[in-house]
Amino acid sequence: MRIKCVISYDGTNFSGMQIQPRARTVEGEINKALRKIHKGESVRIFSSGRTDAGVHAKGQTFHFDSNYHLTPAEWKRALNSLLPTDLHVNEAAHVHDSFHARFDAKEKEYRYYILNERERDVFQQNYIYQYPYELDIKKMQQAAGYFEGTHDFTTFSSAKSETVGSKVRTLYEVSCFRKGSRFEFILRGDGFLYNMVRIIVGTLLDVGRGKLAASDIGKLFNKHDRQSAGDTVPPQGLYLWKVTYNED
Amino acid sequence: MRIKCVISYDGTNFSGMQIQPRARTVEGEINKALRKIHKGESVRIFSSGRTDAGVHAKGQTFHFDSNYHLTPAEWKRALNSLLPTDLHVNEAAHVHDSFHARFDAKEKEYRYYILNERERDVFQQNYIYQYPYELDIKKMQQAAGYFEGTHDFTTFSSAKSETVGSKVRTLYEVSCFRKGSRFEFILRGDGFLYNMVRIIVGTLLDVGRGKLAASDIGKLFNKHDRQSAGDTVPPQGLYLWKVTYNED
Repeated sequence: MRIKCVISYDGTNFSGMQIQPRARTVEGEINKALRKIHKGESVRIFSSGRTDAGVHAKGQTFHFDSNYHLTPAEWKRALNSLLPTDLHVNEAAHVHDSFHARFDAKEKEYRYYILNERERDVFQQNYIYQYPYELDIKKMQQAAGYFEGTHDFTTFSSAKSETVGSKVRTLYEVSCFRKGSRFEFILRGDGFLYNMVRIIVGTLLDVGRGKLAASDIGKLFNKHDRQSAGDTVPPQGLYLWKVTYNED
Repeated sequence: MRIKCVISYDGTNFSGMQIQPRARTVEGEINKALRKIHKGESVRIFSSGRTDAGVHAKGQTFHFDSNYHLTPAEWKRALNSLLPTDLHVNEAAHVHDSFHARFDAKEKEYRYYILNERERDVFQQNYIYQYPYELDIKKMQQAAGYFEGTHDFTTFSSAKSETVGSKVRTLYEVSCFRKGSRFEFILRGDGFLYNMVRIIVGTLLDVGRGKLAASDIGKLFNKHDRQSAGDTVPPQGLYLWKVTYNED
């Protein structure tokens, strides 16, 4: 039986999604819970992809195989009773044996949040990027449009990216909104390179501050050089919001 | 020069307000920052009172003396540049030499937050008490009224309380509100005994679940016995909201 799970996690106290020796990871905690359910037997999980240390998820997805015959509701309950309080299964479902959480992902949505205030808010330090400089939302919205469509994202991904092959990706939506002192960025695409969301948002901040013009974005794409783009904004503002599959 | 500061802190990673050896405390962090400003000289601070591990503050207050002549804005800036990100000075002010943050406090306000949902929200685990059982807000509001006024709060404070002398306190307001799945409790009074807010809220939850009638509260006061009251609700839902002084 193949089971698909949709999970939320507060990334603050995780060294990211992917398992690592001697580090607290999301995958590590799920493996522990599954091993308990399977009486000591290890069960490997396959996620839609990695998230970095400090990055949050509202809709990360993984699958695993089990010969235990539990209903989706029972899987959800069993896992949640064993998982730590910063990691929660929102949904469990039986899926076809050919389903793969990574390879079948059709679209991913990330969101990034900025608090644009002079005073620091101690309660949001791990959940939003506190950026005190004035931002021109109109210019940022104009610049966001330049990222939509199919492009080679070499300029806007980490030079340390392990991606082999093409760095061409298609973004269906890159938008930003202001609600009071809160900025929301929504990015949807067929795939994202390492640090791609955080570098795009960092570049949009440069536009918002007037360091860069919206119309410069095209030239930056053509440089194929990470150094020409904006800073990588910090992980705590980033949320893996949703992973969409063909069956959905 | 006597300086009064109003601070916010995220209590999650503090072992409370009061300094303790080998523990990260709010007072300890402020002492470190003041020692740096005073070139290695220790400066003692006096707060309005303790808060427990995990308890938050939006308006904790302390004072200290210094022979450094900084303006209030300079004190605020100097401290905030040295304090960790989960502790923030909202306001600094010069006060009269006779001002005392603890003894001159006229009124304290605490707030307590409950998330009344079946599903756990991983992002709020340290900031709200997630309580999944159905609650009758009308009955809780009725019961809250019984706590207002002047009473001996022995039943509604920790038996471990170090308070010597009278356990009589006056509460000016005990109220609760529901906003969607969020419950807010507001308690204002001339002083609070150890765990008093958390035991009153725990008792109100018993009323909300029907374990106790609003009209039983009077009898509980008369018992002078901690065992007759409800559980002490967890610290993460509690905020020291405001301390009011005569001068304010």
